[in-house]
Amino acid sequence: MMKRMKAVISYDGSGFAGYQVQPGHRTVQLELEKVLTSMHKGTLVRVSASGRTDAGVHAIGQVIHFDTSLSIPEDRWQKALNVQLPADIRVMSVEEAPEGFHARFSATGKVYRYKWSLTPVHSPFERFHTTHVTYPLDIARMREAAAYFIGTYDFTSFCSAKAEVEDRVRTIHRLEFERHGDQLHLVIQGNGFLYNMVRIIAGTLFDIGIGKKDPTDIPGILEEKDRRAAGKTAPAQGLYLEKVIYGK
Amino acid sequence: MMKRMKAVISYDGSGFAGYQVQPGHRTVQLELEKVLTSMHKGTLVRVSASGRTDAGVHAIGQVIHFDTSLSIPEDRWQKALNVQLPADIRVMSVEEAPEGFHARFSATGKVYRYKWSLTPVHSPFERFHTTHVTYPLDIARMREAAAYFIGTYDFTSFCSAKAEVEDRVRTIHRLEFERHGDQLHLVIQGNGFLYNMVRIIAGTLFDIGIGKKDPTDIPGILEEKDRRAAGKTAPAQGLYLEKVIYGK
Repeated sequence: MMKRMKAVISYDGSGFAGYQVQPGHRTVQLELEKVLTSMHKGTLVRVSASGRTDAGVHAIGQVIHFDTSLSIPEDRWQKALNVQLPADIRVMSVEEAPEGFHARFSATGKVYRYKWSLTPVHSPFERFHTTHVTYPLDIARMREAAAYFIGTYDFTSFCSAKAEVEDRVRTIHRLEFERHGDQLHLVIQGNGFLYNMVRIIAGTLFDIGIGKKDPTDIPGILEEKDRRAAGKTAPAQGLYLEKVIYGK
Repeated sequence: MMKRMKAVISYDGSGFAGYQVQPGHRTVQLELEKVLTSMHKGTLVRVSASGRTDAGVHAIGQVIHFDTSLSIPEDRWQKALNVQLPADIRVMSVEEAPEGFHARFSATGKVYRYKWSLTPVHSPFERFHTTHVTYPLDIARMREAAAYFIGTYDFTSFCSAKAEVEDRVRTIHRLEFERHGDQLHLVIQGNGFLYNMVRIIAGTLFDIGIGKKDPTDIPGILEEKDRRAAGKTAPAQGLYLEKVIYGK
């Protein structure tokens, strides 16, 4: 009998050309499918995620699903997968998926985290896991700007020009800054995110933090619906997919 | 005029075959000497460290010295080096060394830190930077055992059998455990450490934490002066050279 399994996975994106399978590249999906296909004695097992992550982007709580005919008890799946997966991907939990569950289509929201390191020298231990900032950042200005993102807007200005999706209206429920020692984190929650959207929002808030843009510029940038109106795309290595939300 | 410069450096040991130059391997010393030699237009500049670190071992505050004829102002050296060094080595500070200073021979003490990660699953972000422990550790027992190391002893039992040094008497001034979230850190300070000494002490304290040895076994293990009496050498990836002490 086929069962659909839902798993929460964490990965260090620094060794991957992103989540999605791409011929000739090491990707998270490839490693997951290799292990599952081997467990199914060569029958290809497809893995669906809540969404892709780019090369270098990390995940704390990415969610995937796959269908299986194996009769492995629910509580054995985590260990069975972790034993075979490379150490830069870890399965944090596995459960039988609720009826009709789809990692991508059932998702109702996502939380991302963007980490800047504010130390004078970028720690060698953080080099793939934070974006180093040497400019002084005015966090009060960044917080002021953050408030303008809360709500439902057309985020065309904060979406890669390469994106092909048509509906660019998304809702941001939360955008907060947290200070953790020498790091500044941006935590953003929304009902969905366009291609590069979190990184462009982070890059634009960075511009505001260094005084290159004003908090009150945000409504105008949204209004323009033009990628060129926003700031640069912040580097991949600071970005973490923290959580995928299902249900309310 | 030749000047001797003293620098504090930090490195992520996971990409290096250790500190010391070894033909055909990427080492910390090699990378430092490459940059300095290039700055000196091809004249080989030798770098001396407070001591070697093994493959995979990290440094927060390793100290090195080198001699230079360049007239770079003291406050420019750090940036000049960091611009050319790979991102897994960072120079934290540079100053002109006091008269007669030698990174190794002037050192009067060292502080090492050993990090265990106690999470059920080893975080992919910690895989090269902590040792993962799945057994429950009895930290009270480990603290009890730690007390037996404080003082001056012949540490032959806690020294790699491969070591060639004759005088194996060392003084441990401090051995403490710190809890940092899901991590347990062992912090050890002494006047000097034998080859693999911190890792063998960590491995032995781990055995005590899991109940395989007793805290009161330590005096007997020291007494035996035999490497086989102590526990296993703990893995390199959990070890950090935290600080080198000069003077009192």
